Amino acid sequence: MKKSMTTKEKLAALRQLMREQGLAAYIIPGNDPHASEYMAAHWFEMQWISGFNGETGTVVVTMDQALLWTDSRYYLQAGIELKESTIELMRESDLDCPSITDWLCGQMENGTCQNGKYTVGVNPEMFSVNTFKAWKNQLSEAGIGMKSVDLIKPLWTEGRPAIPQDKLYPYSEDYAGESVQSKLARIREMVNGKCPNGKWALLVSALDEIAWLFNIRGNDVEFNPVVISYAVLEADRCTLFVDEAKLDSAGRNYLEFNDITIQPYEAVFDYIRGLRGTIFYDGARVNEAVFEAVSPEAKAQHLPSPIIAEKAKKNAVELEGERIAMRRDAAALTRFFRWLEEEAFTNKDQRPITECDIMDKLHSFRALQENFVEESFGTIAGYRGNGAIVHYAATPDKCAEVKPEGMLLLDSGGQYLDGTTDITRTVWLGGDIPAQAKRDYTYVLKGHIALATVRFPRGTRGNQLDALAKQYMWAAGITYGHGTGHGVGHFLGCHEAPQNVRTDNNPTPLELGHIISDEPGIYRTGEWGIRTENLITVIPAPKTEVATTDDEWYAFETLTLCFYDTSLIDFSLMTPAEIAWINAYHQRVYDEVSPLLSADDAAYLAKKCAKL
Amino acid sequence: MKKSMTTKEKLAALRQLMREQGLAAYIIPGNDPHASEYMAAHWFEMQWISGFNGETGTVVVTMDQALLWTDSRYYLQAGIELKESTIELMRESDLDCPSITDWLCGQMENGTCQNGKYTVGVNPEMFSVNTFKAWKNQLSEAGIGMKSVDLIKPLWTEGRPAIPQDKLYPYSEDYAGESVQSKLARIREMVNGKCPNGKWALLVSALDEIAWLFNIRGNDVEFNPVVISYAVLEADRCTLFVDEAKLDSAGRNYLEFNDITIQPYEAVFDYIRGLRGTIFYDGARVNEAVFEAVSPEAKAQHLPSPIIAEKAKKNAVELEGERIAMRRDAAALTRFFRWLEEEAFTNKDQRPITECDIMDKLHSFRALQENFVEESFGTIAGYRGNGAIVHYAATPDKCAEVKPEGMLLLDSGGQYLDGTTDITRTVWLGGDIPAQAKRDYTYVLKGHIALATVRFPRGTRGNQLDALAKQYMWAAGITYGHGTGHGVGHFLGCHEAPQNVRTDNNPTPLELGHIISDEPGIYRTGEWGIRTENLITVIPAPKTEVATTDDEWYAFETLTLCFYDTSLIDFSLMTPAEIAWINAYHQRVYDEVSPLLSADDAAYLAKKCAKL
Repeated sequence: MKKSMTTKEKLAALRQLMREQGLAAYIIPGNDPHASEYMAAHWFEMQWISGFNGETGTVVVTMDQALLWTDSRYYLQAGIELKESTIELMRESDLDCPSITDWLCGQMENGTCQNGKYTVGVNPEMFSVNTFKAWKNQLSEAGIGMKSVDLIKPLWTEGRPAIPQDKLYPYSEDYAGESVQSKLARIREMVNGKCPNGKWALLVSALDEIAWLFNIRGNDVEFNPVVISYAVLEADRCTLFVDEAKLDSAGRNYLEFNDITIQPYEAVFDYIRGLRGTIFYDGARVNEAVFEAVSPEAKAQHLPSPIIAEKAKKNAVELEGERIAMRRDAAALTRFFRWLEEEAFTNKDQRPITECDIMDKLHSFRALQENFVEESFGTIAGYRGNGAIVHYAATPDKCAEVKPEGMLLLDSGGQYLDGTTDITRTVWLGGDIPAQAKRDYTYVLKGHIALATVRFPRGTRGNQLDALAKQYMWAAGITYGHGTGHGVGHFLGCHEAPQNVRTDNNPTPLELGHIISDEPGIYRTGEWGIRTENLITVIPAPKTEVATTDDEWYAFETLTLCFYDTSLIDFSLMTPAEIAWINAYHQRVYDEVSPLLSADDAAYLAKKCAKL
Repeated sequence: MKKSMTTKEKLAALRQLMREQGLAAYIIPGNDPHASEYMAAHWFEMQWISGFNGETGTVVVTMDQALLWTDSRYYLQAGIELKESTIELMRESDLDCPSITDWLCGQMENGTCQNGKYTVGVNPEMFSVNTFKAWKNQLSEAGIGMKSVDLIKPLWTEGRPAIPQDKLYPYSEDYAGESVQSKLARIREMVNGKCPNGKWALLVSALDEIAWLFNIRGNDVEFNPVVISYAVLEADRCTLFVDEAKLDSAGRNYLEFNDITIQPYEAVFDYIRGLRGTIFYDGARVNEAVFEAVSPEAKAQHLPSPIIAEKAKKNAVELEGERIAMRRDAAALTRFFRWLEEEAFTNKDQRPITECDIMDKLHSFRALQENFVEESFGTIAGYRGNGAIVHYAATPDKCAEVKPEGMLLLDSGGQYLDGTTDITRTVWLGGDIPAQAKRDYTYVLKGHIALATVRFPRGTRGNQLDALAKQYMWAAGITYGHGTGHGVGHFLGCHEAPQNVRTDNNPTPLELGHIISDEPGIYRTGEWGIRTENLITVIPAPKTEVATTDDEWYAFETLTLCFYDTSLIDFSLMTPAEIAWINAYHQRVYDEVSPLLSADDAAYLAKKCAKL
């Protein structure tokens, strides 16, 4: 048996296959077939070919060049990991960095082509239908062709991790709040409306959609409790394409009881080839390989996924689960913050505390909570200037020591069987607080409260509310580049479409039961990062007596239950209404969380929630 | 000679022509060929065929039916004016009213077709390229064809008003701030960038674009000082298509001096037929007839009009003109409000005052001002409940008596040679003010101030700021349906694309020199309407010392100069910062306007601007 190949050997082998296929370039994106945010190691093709271990990147290989596009978070890491690889780093956050398609068009114009033809190979499983089409259109204008072919599979035979084989498990209706049959009936009715008289099928390749639709969960990827699978819904049947190995008798019985046909994971393509009538797919979510499997005798038609839209509107049981999970999460956070304040820096052995210790400690307190499954994303513990790096991730070999002074930004969350949490608190660990730090913290807090307390008519979109969270820092000439709020799933993805609050145009109105985060921030390079984040959900607001129109009114309920660091507030900037809101919130935090705490922890919480 | 035809006779004659052309339906929209908001009477085809004299409506004629679609503003008027016409009123503001295309598709499905074919005739001059295409696509799905043909021209021979023959006049660079040559060079450079190596032409059919590009003005329609014409810009020439009759020697000399070729108005179609290369048109602005004239040997290509984008960004001279015009407009308003307060209800002959008297009086004070040309739109004087009707227009035979009590909403504006104004003030004429009236007025005022005072990073779109103007009334469960701000031209249209502040997604970011209105409102049916409107312009805001990013910052400068009715303010709802803003604004109003006033008027203004 051959030893594991070097990057140079892998590139040489790939180029041999490219030559056989007549390809001038081959593209390996850091994606999986399910448009997942977190991927199973089986699909780390970009990492395998390049030796670069960042989460985001795309490798482009031509006959004489190899390049990796990645963003500024990974410039340093990529520089080190690519050193021996011959792969050139393309810094895609830089303004002068060409896009991959522009770069390819440039290659074509430079005459770098094979027999007058320039064809780019891609694995269609790794592209959404929409992205594939957009690339194809742009490249074809430059005379470049695109060919669907998987060249990594024949190369990566040694040591490739299998597709995860963890068991899927039924997700109790006690948590989901709706039966599979009810969900299937609702979605079928919606699709029928698009195709009243005809035979149809709906292709589903996003894992959170499948998990929601069938009330199943799994352990196949980090942070998201999903099951690697495909699904096809038809008027008279539904089919789950999943590895046999993932089914124990409970799982199999559950699926069979619900009339969900089981087929092998790889069988999805043949199954789709056999479908006739109208084949609905969401071009933004379904991969190109699935789309290409549709028979020419059927009619493929884009349909924004009705599952995504329905999944986003949490039902009463899901929301009640979220509320209960939030109490447990807050109990863990209270215990953690007490440890940080009273124990961390006075430990017997005087060992220095690092950002990683903080991440581990917080995880350990969450892990003690009932129904805790895993974290909902990698904790961001950013001490001082590290807090200003928006996607900062401390690692054991590269993390800062934390001292009892200065600012700490802590963004973390848990997956509980009854709900998903995501919370950011920024706390001052000791020493004199600079006046600007207080002002920054207060601008963020005022924006956070403005969004949490807005009333708005039905039909309002998140981007209409974004400036409410920014208005106070804008007045001071400060802003931030990330979204103000992302959608959150129910014991599913911590980042969920389609609802959000961002500057970008997003046609989705906020709907009852949507959960979003409320997380404005201010970041001072090298000094501190401040972000304050709660999860909030859209609830009905009664029409007032003085209403002038028939509009239906909505408001937000704050779900997250954790005190703010009031030592960081500049009270001269706060209105009486804002202080009253904090007092009411802190009272609620104490009332709901203290019953879960020891007497000492409850006393600590009472102190943190003291009336201002 | 025949007497003028009745509506029934006109419909019969039209149906005869439809039969000859094989048309199952013919559509007469209330449009002109230039996508004008205000139209010359020559194009009142919808009004001519129907006898309905509202400004907005579309008539659809089939072999056995005739229908008029119009909105709720005109239901009453249309009901009366259509009485003898056999034309059925379609209430398009009602939720259950089908769109014209849906209605036509329904006719087709009902089997109402001619020899198995159903073809709809339209005059392509009256449709934008985009609207025509959208209709064509929808109708073709139902098997309905569309045919471009003008059937009104051969019918409406008796008494049709000519195309206006008023003289065009050069618009001085002292007001425009930029020479024709400079504008032509800038626009040519922008179009060249879209077609670097080829021959091109840019078609222009919107009258405000032509007026801006060539620095010409005219008197062809009410409220907008434009010249009925077409223009074609090419790399090496530009051509204005305009009636000979509109040119005196000054106009002709001006055009010739600037190398603008003159051709007859109707010659535009032949001229376009002769063009080759890439023919750019803005599908939202250019009419379908112009588009259809493009030769198959040329390449028609949509390009968002660079003229619209450049016109919207007022230069320093235009802005200075606006500021000066605002002072004169404010002098007229001050004189008017003093008349309303001190004279209107104490006139010797005790004649009752009506909304129309108020409109006339305001006009008469404006007419005394230097550089005043005409009103910029029809004044809205809405007394009490009439103020709650958003597009209310009093007419001599239908206007309310105004008494020295209750609320008056007054929305008006002027066209001055140096700038366009548009202002709304709501005032209390006497009697006890209900607490809710004060609260409503104050919510509106707070929103108006919030928008006027926001700082925002470059790239921000109007729809991101809309909620700032609504947040206070939203908190009380109140909202309004109209836009918060429309774009305003410079001695051109009082409603100008592309900048605005609305709930709708509009991809246009706010740019330096954009002028928009800031006009939130609250409307209580049968009680009162409250709207407060200033014009504001986007100005650079210096980066603050505490900025965290490299963003360029913008703010608004308030252009309008007129006091608010402070008797309507509920001070318990106001912040100290808001009161300080009003005081500073009132001080500025007094300082800038009082030099234009008589001593008595200045004393009145000082009282209205007294420090709160």
